[in-house]
Amino acid sequence: MSDRFDERAFIAEIVARNSQLPPGILIPPGDDMAQLLLPDNSILVSVDQIVEGVHFTSGTSLDLIARKAIARNVSDVAAMAGIPLATLAAAVIPKAMTSHTACELLKALREKAAEFGCPLIGGDTTMHVASNAPLTISVTILATLRSDGIVVRRDGAQPGDHLLVSGTLGGSLDKDGQGRHLTFSPRLEHAHRLVDELGNAVHAMIDISDGLGRDCAALIDSSSRRCGRALQGVLDSVDGACTPGCSELQALGDGEDHELLVAVAHDAVVPAGWIPVGKVTLRAASSQPMVLARVGAEYIDASEIGWNHE
Amino acid sequence: MSDRFDERAFIAEIVARNSQLPPGILIPPGDDMAQLLLPDNSILVSVDQIVEGVHFTSGTSLDLIARKAIARNVSDVAAMAGIPLATLAAAVIPKAMTSHTACELLKALREKAAEFGCPLIGGDTTMHVASNAPLTISVTILATLRSDGIVVRRDGAQPGDHLLVSGTLGGSLDKDGQGRHLTFSPRLEHAHRLVDELGNAVHAMIDISDGLGRDCAALIDSSSRRCGRALQGVLDSVDGACTPGCSELQALGDGEDHELLVAVAHDAVVPAGWIPVGKVTLRAASSQPMVLARVGAEYIDASEIGWNHE
Repeated sequence: MSDRFDERAFIAEIVARNSQLPPGILIPPGDDMAQLLLPDNSILVSVDQIVEGVHFTSGTSLDLIARKAIARNVSDVAAMAGIPLATLAAAVIPKAMTSHTACELLKALREKAAEFGCPLIGGDTTMHVASNAPLTISVTILATLRSDGIVVRRDGAQPGDHLLVSGTLGGSLDKDGQGRHLTFSPRLEHAHRLVDELGNAVHAMIDISDGLGRDCAALIDSSSRRCGRALQGVLDSVDGACTPGCSELQALGDGEDHELLVAVAHDAVVPAGWIPVGKVTLRAASSQPMVLARVGAEYIDASEIGWNHE
Repeated sequence: MSDRFDERAFIAEIVARNSQLPPGILIPPGDDMAQLLLPDNSILVSVDQIVEGVHFTSGTSLDLIARKAIARNVSDVAAMAGIPLATLAAAVIPKAMTSHTACELLKALREKAAEFGCPLIGGDTTMHVASNAPLTISVTILATLRSDGIVVRRDGAQPGDHLLVSGTLGGSLDKDGQGRHLTFSPRLEHAHRLVDELGNAVHAMIDISDGLGRDCAALIDSSSRRCGRALQGVLDSVDGACTPGCSELQALGDGEDHELLVAVAHDAVVPAGWIPVGKVTLRAASSQPMVLARVGAEYIDASEIGWNHE
């Protein structure tokens, strides 16, 4: 068991190599998107994939599969306060899939990409040779910057910041594999209105895909490294951000909510449509938890609470 | 059988929708890469994937797998006369793959990407839940334009053009699944020297991945549509471009050579390092073959000769 694939260790290993990257990569691996310097401009780009049996069940409609494949990427754009530009999709299709179904899938991808303002401009398709190998869709998204040039990274949180979320959390996955994880609306407008109102007082932002606990830990961890101080996320009011019927633990750990978690300056006025969930403080010792969350009357270590997509 | 996935029909269906794309997509789907207009610049981007059992056998080393995943994309950049900028990779890894092996794969991808001048700047990894589901790697590549702004599309061939290839063709796949398809060198330098020497007399270029016959047909077909005339590729000297030990049919059909096929103006002097294989003419009737190839003493319809990656 101990040598099974560990995505977090994997990502940590990637990030550890960032200093070896050449100049011109303004935001290297580790954030929701990478930012590239072009000779006269810059562009945001990222890739994300969905796999049958992992991100959707076999009975899910092509429309919902395509929607999720695109929407996950748009949510990454929202988390940077970027502006979706275009997408590319690569699919490995099951051996038994008919040409008709493959074309329906393409059509659905194209339609959803257009609906989300990032037209599909490229792709690749291969057919599995193995029987029963699952449908896999990888989507690359390109995005441009706001006209004010503001890009919100995940590593800019500072002591005293308020932590806010863009909507309620928990319960995104129904018992039958359906649910909000297939139908969520990426929070692009939320993100842009926030930056319109607060500008550079928006210190850090991340897409909540693994669960509030783990994603908050990712924001705190990268911000700690950037500012050189041991920060802590104290989530003392998650109870105000639970989807009706969901517990605080579900709000912390269910994952695939695709809401945004943001750290804004301590003196910023919290804008309408955002729910305060806590604040950023300093850890007294680096052995203390990255994220503390109040669940009922108790504070627990929430740094590892989340959904593991394995 | 008739409703099995048909990639060519699939692509034709994509290209048929190009007119519905918004402005700003300078080169839409159907070429080796898409070109995007940015506010002050443009960028080339494409995605390609490799799947275990389709593009490499299970016993292939991680280094060779990673090399092929990156090199295929660099070959697409060469086919546009672009300049590699950066890559992103998304992998779906087999359930049984250890964390160590997954990290070795990442390392190999990063090293190969750096070697080819297009650093890995993003990615995603998911683990299969199904047993025996194959390793899949999808690579997105971004590229910038030459300083003279020339981008060589595949659809610019004109009647009278010479058809040249950048190297010998055929035999890329050994009996044991190894061979040049894993070790080829993308023809970036070839492409740029050609454009340096001939400028806009380089009318069209394509990466030979499916086989000379099929890829020539793709170049002729798209060029015919662009210029509004029924063109034909006449490959009358493929015998001069065969890998030693390979027949003309192998040179036409083996695929995964990743050499370049180029159409240059009739009055251009053929530069060193390029092998003439034929020329572009007009079809007397649109029912005539897109590509005619001389094999021995006979001319055959080579439009469908190639390797189908299914």
